[in-house]
Amino acid sequence: MAPLTLVIVGGNAAGMKAASRARRLNPDCRIMVFEQKAYVSYGACGLPYFTSGVVKERQDLVVRSPQYFKSVGNIDVHTGHKVIRLNPSDRTITVKNLQTEKEQTVFFDNLILTTGVTPVIPPLPNINLHRIFTVKTLEDGEAIRQYIRGEGCKEAVIVGAGLIGLEMAENLHRAGLKVSVVELLPQVLPPFSPEIAFSVEKHLREKGVEVFPGERVKGFEGDEKQGVKRVVTEQRELKADLVILSIGVRPNIELAKVANITLGPTGAIQVNERMETSMSSIFAAGDCAETKSLLTGKPVWVPLGSIANKQGRVAGENAAGGIATFRGVLPSIITKVFDLTIAKTGLNEQEAIKAGFAVERSIVLPFDKAHYYPGAKPLLLKMIADRMTRRILGGEILGEAGVDKRADALAAAIYNDVTCEDLSQLDVAYSPPYSPAMDALITGANVLLNKFSGIYTAISADELKQKIDRGGPFLLLDVRTAEEYQAGHIPGALHIPLDKLRERSLELKGKATGALVVYCGQSLRSYQASRILKELGLGEAINLEGGIRMWRWEKEKA
Amino acid sequence: MAPLTLVIVGGNAAGMKAASRARRLNPDCRIMVFEQKAYVSYGACGLPYFTSGVVKERQDLVVRSPQYFKSVGNIDVHTGHKVIRLNPSDRTITVKNLQTEKEQTVFFDNLILTTGVTPVIPPLPNINLHRIFTVKTLEDGEAIRQYIRGEGCKEAVIVGAGLIGLEMAENLHRAGLKVSVVELLPQVLPPFSPEIAFSVEKHLREKGVEVFPGERVKGFEGDEKQGVKRVVTEQRELKADLVILSIGVRPNIELAKVANITLGPTGAIQVNERMETSMSSIFAAGDCAETKSLLTGKPVWVPLGSIANKQGRVAGENAAGGIATFRGVLPSIITKVFDLTIAKTGLNEQEAIKAGFAVERSIVLPFDKAHYYPGAKPLLLKMIADRMTRRILGGEILGEAGVDKRADALAAAIYNDVTCEDLSQLDVAYSPPYSPAMDALITGANVLLNKFSGIYTAISADELKQKIDRGGPFLLLDVRTAEEYQAGHIPGALHIPLDKLRERSLELKGKATGALVVYCGQSLRSYQASRILKELGLGEAINLEGGIRMWRWEKEKA
Repeated sequence: MAPLTLVIVGGNAAGMKAASRARRLNPDCRIMVFEQKAYVSYGACGLPYFTSGVVKERQDLVVRSPQYFKSVGNIDVHTGHKVIRLNPSDRTITVKNLQTEKEQTVFFDNLILTTGVTPVIPPLPNINLHRIFTVKTLEDGEAIRQYIRGEGCKEAVIVGAGLIGLEMAENLHRAGLKVSVVELLPQVLPPFSPEIAFSVEKHLREKGVEVFPGERVKGFEGDEKQGVKRVVTEQRELKADLVILSIGVRPNIELAKVANITLGPTGAIQVNERMETSMSSIFAAGDCAETKSLLTGKPVWVPLGSIANKQGRVAGENAAGGIATFRGVLPSIITKVFDLTIAKTGLNEQEAIKAGFAVERSIVLPFDKAHYYPGAKPLLLKMIADRMTRRILGGEILGEAGVDKRADALAAAIYNDVTCEDLSQLDVAYSPPYSPAMDALITGANVLLNKFSGIYTAISADELKQKIDRGGPFLLLDVRTAEEYQAGHIPGALHIPLDKLRERSLELKGKATGALVVYCGQSLRSYQASRILKELGLGEAINLEGGIRMWRWEKEKA
Repeated sequence: MAPLTLVIVGGNAAGMKAASRARRLNPDCRIMVFEQKAYVSYGACGLPYFTSGVVKERQDLVVRSPQYFKSVGNIDVHTGHKVIRLNPSDRTITVKNLQTEKEQTVFFDNLILTTGVTPVIPPLPNINLHRIFTVKTLEDGEAIRQYIRGEGCKEAVIVGAGLIGLEMAENLHRAGLKVSVVELLPQVLPPFSPEIAFSVEKHLREKGVEVFPGERVKGFEGDEKQGVKRVVTEQRELKADLVILSIGVRPNIELAKVANITLGPTGAIQVNERMETSMSSIFAAGDCAETKSLLTGKPVWVPLGSIANKQGRVAGENAAGGIATFRGVLPSIITKVFDLTIAKTGLNEQEAIKAGFAVERSIVLPFDKAHYYPGAKPLLLKMIADRMTRRILGGEILGEAGVDKRADALAAAIYNDVTCEDLSQLDVAYSPPYSPAMDALITGANVLLNKFSGIYTAISADELKQKIDRGGPFLLLDVRTAEEYQAGHIPGALHIPLDKLRERSLELKGKATGALVVYCGQSLRSYQASRILKELGLGEAINLEGGIRMWRWEKEKA
């Protein structure tokens, strides 16, 4: 029998991982990879850091060369080769050498499509001006890097405040540019809850980056020779020597579509758990393929390098004659924005509600280390759970350190269907330099359990704002210290510090018509206050979840 | 009906957590805590950092005062009160006020024993000399801190190289002392595998701490007035102005024992999942109580603050009339030793073998961040799994950064009975500043899967050392670069760099009588080499797991 011929279309994360895996399982098969660009196997996620010089050399990003794959893996990598046609019926592809323009037909036994994504370019006036960049390829990164190091590049506008947009904001700012970020949606980092996104916006502004959420870009101005000069939004004009377009990507599905391979509801290539497409012997993996949400069971499209690598490995194994499956994703994401780390795993509150879950939430602000250990800083952790099953559905975490740790531990827990009960007893490793004795995740799970058992009642900052704006009859109680209260409190709040609450509780009698809402800095003291009030027969007080830290509106000074 | 009276013996982590939880669930009950010492609720795990001044103030460690518990929780905390007798038949305890020496009898409906531990003091000659300290109470910490800040304290000897011993080594070194560590067992950090412990010993020596594993202390020398002067071991005499005894702790079970409460096989108080002892209405929690290993199902005794807090919460809930259970522990531990973090979760290889598992292991050395991101450093991850069920049984991690993150993610996974397959697809959050695209845990799980499926065969450094010492017929192949080989290789190794292996493979034919063992720096290139050798028909090469990094013996220079 002739050895199997495996052809892979696309030489990035998923493609090269598939090739390597296939070789390891099958020493005899023939493996060919076709890649349009000049490089394979480079760290595309590092591009923002490469533009600013945080990652110093191009070579740092290029993991392995075609020569390496040949000498070590006996894998034939053809860069500068574009696959222009896929012919499933005769199991061939048509490949064009982009240098010689020559076309050839290549036979395959098994094919893996790892065609990746293309940045979305909106059809706006003057979108084709020079110095409007996307951040996708090594060539993009090099062009941006070279340009910002030159004379005259002083101001940058970033259109789109997703992960790449904000990573570029940090890196361009670091490179000495004045940076503005324009986002169509009402907040930065659209996958995150508004209260998390608000903290990020605040941090960006503190660092000197201008942020314009909820603002539509109408077009660009400039001249053909010098390129872009201004970004015009519905609200303003922003001077721009450089524009980064980071409004999203779309899967490269043209080859698949023309070959009648089924696309999924997300628009990416539909695959099963073995990464098989609808067409026999043809697999797809990485950013061009769909996957499944482990929380909703529905198809999702999540173009991320971490997922691409895992899918590539599974596709490579199956295409080489093995058996492997890819279960799906939560997904988990993380990004660094200056001094903050922001991570999310699973669903956010809105996504979970949309998916039909009865959602309970907790917002806690525990320290990342033992409170007495030098450098301890508060985290902001929002978790959601399903009221019916008590299963944890997702979490968002923001802070200066230890965010990635909680995100991954939570991801590992959710990946294994953890309930609030189990998370509350998670046996994580404790020592003062690394966490408090009760870790953030445990605190968050305990709050959820307290809510389920009815000993903790809470209101979100948004709900409280609405309540105040409606002007209904209720009493708002601030139980922080006098200094904290004087520095700024929620308008209309009465002040009784927690340690005086027992003796001064009579002041509340009579005043408390309607609900009693109590708050503090982070909702720890308010929780204790609510227990005291209950003990004293003053009823079930409602806690402002996350405390005044979550109050995004005006404060009143004493 | 009269309100419930809950009495708690011991005012540290478990005790105060139990009191607070009971109060939250039961606003009406009477809660009394008796504590011998002057403080309650302090961060005992922070003591090593307090001695050196890393934690600046005593007040930083004292979380809450008795007054706080009274005013906020209506909890009566009696410090300086020792419970000298427990009388289950009439539901009373006898309490002695240590200042007035007066005794009183206190009735309880429910009782929680959180009596904690006492450091082990070995019956050695002159053990009672001044300046031989244990590190248990705030008073210990203050005495050490005061003494090392004074004149004439220049050399310290630490007896016992467990977590506290090594934390003290770092902190005393930081305080300017010359530090030696003596350990009876053949390695430091006894809960860890020898190869992990070896790296810690090396690091300690690099930092200027002398380490003497496998050395028995015979006694101490000094004089009554000035205190200890020398530590005498079977091998040497060590000058000592200060001795830290950290050879372990034992549970305080005297009260329970006299009251005929059942002790478990570990010697600590036996409890069920609700933290109930054998005696009705009497609970135990924290360091004095046993718990269950989630991996073996057997009783274990793990005196750690993180576990004490969780158990205290469960005991408090149950003793207040609620229903809560504590499932058990992995356990997870972590410690900082100078620039290294070392963590463990679940079982180590020896523990798993002893518990009857068929153990498979992986040792990998992946980067903590994307390899190109500034500051990326290799981790050392050893994982073990059960060959029968493929369940992950435990992991040990060592490195400069990101160790706590992998430990907690792995803990969350093991806590939920994860298999190698699932761990290999764990959807952890990826971005270059936080991890490689394939995280360490995924790499480790993939190596285990490769071993299960027979495409990766490995030998540990210990096994290779034995093989070499036996002198059996086998060929040892180093596939690193010429520079790496010349800088030091395993005695007798043949050198062919990986990228020349295909063309020079003929050199191996004929030479390879018996087994072929191949190694590189970290076992990544050797893995690729073994695939090439197989492809070329040279049979199944055996990889040195973890590469030359794991070779603890003499190297040969070219």
